[in-house]
Amino acid sequence: MKFESMKGFRDFLPEEMAARREVFRRIERVVRRFGFREIDLPSLEEMKLFEVKSGEELVDQTYSFEDKGGRKVTLIPEQTPSRARLLASEKSLNQPVKWYSTSKRWRYEQTQRGRLREFYQTDVDIFGADSVESEAEILAVVVEIIDELEVSESVDVLVNDRKLLEEVLENKGIEDKRTVMETIDDREKMSKEEFFGELVDIGLGKDEAKKVEEIVSIKGKFGDKVREVEETVSEKNETLVRMKQLEEILESYGIADRVKLDMSIVRGLDYYTGLVFEVFDKGGELRAICGGGRYDELVELFGGQSIPAVGFAIGDVVIEELMRREGVWPEERLRTDVYVLPVSKDVRNRALDITKKLRDEGLVVETDLKDRNVSAQLNYANYIGAERVIIVGERDLKQGKITVKEMESGDEKLISLDEVVEKVK
Amino acid sequence: MKFESMKGFRDFLPEEMAARREVFRRIERVVRRFGFREIDLPSLEEMKLFEVKSGEELVDQTYSFEDKGGRKVTLIPEQTPSRARLLASEKSLNQPVKWYSTSKRWRYEQTQRGRLREFYQTDVDIFGADSVESEAEILAVVVEIIDELEVSESVDVLVNDRKLLEEVLENKGIEDKRTVMETIDDREKMSKEEFFGELVDIGLGKDEAKKVEEIVSIKGKFGDKVREVEETVSEKNETLVRMKQLEEILESYGIADRVKLDMSIVRGLDYYTGLVFEVFDKGGELRAICGGGRYDELVELFGGQSIPAVGFAIGDVVIEELMRREGVWPEERLRTDVYVLPVSKDVRNRALDITKKLRDEGLVVETDLKDRNVSAQLNYANYIGAERVIIVGERDLKQGKITVKEMESGDEKLISLDEVVEKVK
Repeated sequence: MKFESMKGFRDFLPEEMAARREVFRRIERVVRRFGFREIDLPSLEEMKLFEVKSGEELVDQTYSFEDKGGRKVTLIPEQTPSRARLLASEKSLNQPVKWYSTSKRWRYEQTQRGRLREFYQTDVDIFGADSVESEAEILAVVVEIIDELEVSESVDVLVNDRKLLEEVLENKGIEDKRTVMETIDDREKMSKEEFFGELVDIGLGKDEAKKVEEIVSIKGKFGDKVREVEETVSEKNETLVRMKQLEEILESYGIADRVKLDMSIVRGLDYYTGLVFEVFDKGGELRAICGGGRYDELVELFGGQSIPAVGFAIGDVVIEELMRREGVWPEERLRTDVYVLPVSKDVRNRALDITKKLRDEGLVVETDLKDRNVSAQLNYANYIGAERVIIVGERDLKQGKITVKEMESGDEKLISLDEVVEKVK
Repeated sequence: MKFESMKGFRDFLPEEMAARREVFRRIERVVRRFGFREIDLPSLEEMKLFEVKSGEELVDQTYSFEDKGGRKVTLIPEQTPSRARLLASEKSLNQPVKWYSTSKRWRYEQTQRGRLREFYQTDVDIFGADSVESEAEILAVVVEIIDELEVSESVDVLVNDRKLLEEVLENKGIEDKRTVMETIDDREKMSKEEFFGELVDIGLGKDEAKKVEEIVSIKGKFGDKVREVEETVSEKNETLVRMKQLEEILESYGIADRVKLDMSIVRGLDYYTGLVFEVFDKGGELRAICGGGRYDELVELFGGQSIPAVGFAIGDVVIEELMRREGVWPEERLRTDVYVLPVSKDVRNRALDITKKLRDEGLVVETDLKDRNVSAQLNYANYIGAERVIIVGERDLKQGKITVKEMESGDEKLISLDEVVEKVK
């Protein structure tokens, strides 16, 4: 019988997992510096939790089933509903609540480029702050993550505000804003002509459709474009004032020129209530690397008080594609500080003693477990990426010495047994 | 509508997760020093993978269901079958293969003390080595983990060898070894009298039952008890020679007196082929904290070549119970290096600038996101466990200064703005 992992699921061997850990480590290091705290929530929740926010259609794309107790349950496709559930029940949390978590998510979808059935995702949220400062902080985290992953040259951080888009549409005399925004959200799947045709199909006059085209084409340096929009909307507009404040705070973070305004960013229809943003590769080849925004009405849906929220999620699948393409995916190799090589069974216990002492110093140390000869052991030491090999031989031992071999240079040195720990650590 | 997490599933708030992380970190630090490498495998596998090893009865206690493509799938209750699957398909791995992974497992069981439906487990295995050295290494890892978790005084590491038990039974003239071992495995659920009765019920004469009672009562210092068994079995017995070697190697690790021989340890019937061990709290109140052994025939079952294996697993539920009981569970609190406190909106950007600089130094820093007054901010700083608060006020700023408040002592110092990073980091 032959067994395989299922389509859309991945096995990570040590070299692969070490690279992935390094990526998570860099993301989480940034997030922690900003004062976000790790939480952990169940992988399995009652299905009704996901129906609140997403409706039945999205739940259809999850791993949902009836458990042996007759409960309808879902392997979480995202963590936001669980966070909202927890916030609704934990009334004593001091706000702002700043949470992150890197864990697995599952979706029952056709697997394709950038989309798997099991993937890792880091979710980062601020709950309980409706300030523009909290939005700037979230954007600063995103920009720093991009820097840490060494892809800053290859991506655009595209920001919009749903309210601003609505107001601009209104100002331009577009009445059915909701349907128009739905169409804008579908825009990237269409050609320019199809998009125009679709706008006309949903009832816009050609002039109106042209105006919408103009609006969604606004894209460029954040500050410049905010001022461009200013000419369209009245200056007293609250959202615009907020966006100008956002620019000012981004300046303080030194990242105002790292963010673009893109009036075509909508991110679906329900859920988001203000700021929305996405990170795309400049080539436009890949799916969004990261996305988020403000969703002030969500927690209330889950039975809690009204709690404003802003956050984002970054998955491991698309960022890996991008980092590999850009040649910055961490090197996939094994690393070992020391391999201790007993040349024969007779010196095994002495070798073990050295092994133990070096491990006690915190070094990663392996030794022979298969009673192999010297050359087989050297091969293995090489395979596990040992930096140094300590050769424990009978003759050397009689003089109280062992040989330390530097694997990269091949240099060998005979040193006194008493000095091993001191010299090697 | 009110939502809750399901019975047997846990929500971990930041304080709780920080403590759990610390426990995982200590376990993994030990494991990594011994040269074990992290792997990661799917959480969902085809159900047939679990039927190979465990039979239908155990699969009944899993979360198994039919996915939307009609595949019977199982949320993994353990990682060993997946490891065997991977080993069977990856033919080019250099042996010994030393893997660990800390991840979630699921069981559909009645929840009770020490048993939840979702739990974390660290699995540690050496594949490809049948040596007694590999068994000693696994035991050394277990003992060091116990030390790192500060529970060494409260637990017993109980070791046995299934082959030795079989040989001793044979030597004592017991014929139906399999049924007797099944009964021994159930022994802890019975009183002394019930156990004796059960042995008679399965067909042993009273003398034979007494002999079995004697054998399973052998429990004590590893070396002493091995010599006690020696008197029962012929000295040339291979397993006994191996156990004496094991003792010798454990001496080299300095842990021979940390391990007890306990002839009643069986660990179920199929699966294990030699060494078996369990870690129990000395009070005998809790379930096994950790268990493992040698299982040389498993990988072959999954279609691979024959690969010897020895390993163990440690879950998070029982170890937490024990560490809490012993008062050594890590403190559950939030920690923050610095809170930067702008006394008014006017100095917000200056505060942000300081915040950014300190974060760039790798410190965990928070600042105001809710436009709060000084006292509300100090409360929050206290809540997040800030070590220091930097108070940014207009008057101080005019002199190019800020105030640093040490939260524990309450001491305040006025320092120059230029020195902030230097003084605080």
